[in-house]
Amino acid sequence: MKLYICRGTCQPFCRSLPDDPLLECFTSTDDSSVQVDPSHAEMVKRAITENRSAVNGGFLLKLPFTTIFEYLQILRMIAVSLRSLGPSAMFYLAAAVSDFYVPWESMTMHKIQSASGPLDMRLAQVPKMLYVLRNEWAPVAFCISFKLETDTDILLGKADMALKKYKMHMVVANELQTRKEEVIVVTEQEKITVRRDTTQPGADVEDPLIKLVVDRHSAYIDA
Amino acid sequence: MKLYICRGTCQPFCRSLPDDPLLECFTSTDDSSVQVDPSHAEMVKRAITENRSAVNGGFLLKLPFTTIFEYLQILRMIAVSLRSLGPSAMFYLAAAVSDFYVPWESMTMHKIQSASGPLDMRLAQVPKMLYVLRNEWAPVAFCISFKLETDTDILLGKADMALKKYKMHMVVANELQTRKEEVIVVTEQEKITVRRDTTQPGADVEDPLIKLVVDRHSAYIDA
Repeated sequence: MKLYICRGTCQPFCRSLPDDPLLECFTSTDDSSVQVDPSHAEMVKRAITENRSAVNGGFLLKLPFTTIFEYLQILRMIAVSLRSLGPSAMFYLAAAVSDFYVPWESMTMHKIQSASGPLDMRLAQVPKMLYVLRNEWAPVAFCISFKLETDTDILLGKADMALKKYKMHMVVANELQTRKEEVIVVTEQEKITVRRDTTQPGADVEDPLIKLVVDRHSAYIDA
Repeated sequence: MKLYICRGTCQPFCRSLPDDPLLECFTSTDDSSVQVDPSHAEMVKRAITENRSAVNGGFLLKLPFTTIFEYLQILRMIAVSLRSLGPSAMFYLAAAVSDFYVPWESMTMHKIQSASGPLDMRLAQVPKMLYVLRNEWAPVAFCISFKLETDTDILLGKADMALKKYKMHMVVANELQTRKEEVIVVTEQEKITVRRDTTQPGADVEDPLIKLVVDRHSAYIDA
């Protein structure tokens, strides 16, 4: 069973499809039926079939959110509910949650008027909920977080810090320019470079990454 | 011919469809074909057919953008190119362009680090390009802009001001809560309330609005 907290248009099973699959992948024929273009047929069919089978089988529940407030509330509810699963629960925290936000009390009632020059804003830091997740909400769950940087020089240091500070089991370190080709998985014992299989057309870095995650989570459950 | 400057997932012909039409409207059958759910069949078929016919017929060109810099550059290029059409060109400026932005020179090279407390930002006002559009880029084109407010008390005043300041031919005044039911079209001579036809299922406020816009633009060309 997978609980998927999602915002916007990144949907499970759709990552190989064009941004706007309905208009890009289909044509309508004269006898008033709708057909998939042959060039996209396999990918579209796979996305639809796998999504339906996951949703209908009860393996996937999508939980949409818009604001950071909703995201953190949903995460807490899920974490507390999954506590009873012990080490079998896994958190795969890939969402790029914003680092800063506008606190409720400093929001204006109405749309801000633009007439009066520049706008000065003070953004507050989003509280680091990973710590609370690990220490209070679901202390025995297997936790994976992501660290994205644009500056390779600080990436591994930041990933290491997140691992220790928030007691993650794995941190996936990825660099904006190369993250579709390789990522580095940081654990307490090792740093593992995970690369896309460039000999397979359409293979992506998630394929070997997910294998590694499942392996480590299985070992964690058995330990 | 329509040039559509678009950002994100709002696509022409898709406004009646669910947010995620591929996964919501289709099923796959055992003989490995993909089928539209009967409940969505008509809407999906209409969206695909109308989009294909507009694109293939050369009536619609979509120009995607991400940043405000791209948007304003694209708008200028289009406006200057359409100048030769004189009054036959129409600008329907419905995009909610941000009022404020972060100037290039104050952007950081790398992802901003979150460790060091709150973040103070000074946002600059986006230059008001409507004025330049009307006075330099395409002075004879028919121009419609939109004014959205959350505060009804100031909406019509702001719409009136935009009409005069930027010499728009029409300003569509809409209020966040009620904009799917009614809008007020402000021109130099009159204020026209445009309402959705609530007796027709699926009718929206755009239907009568577009009729009004076409009428006024035709009269403008003939004048």
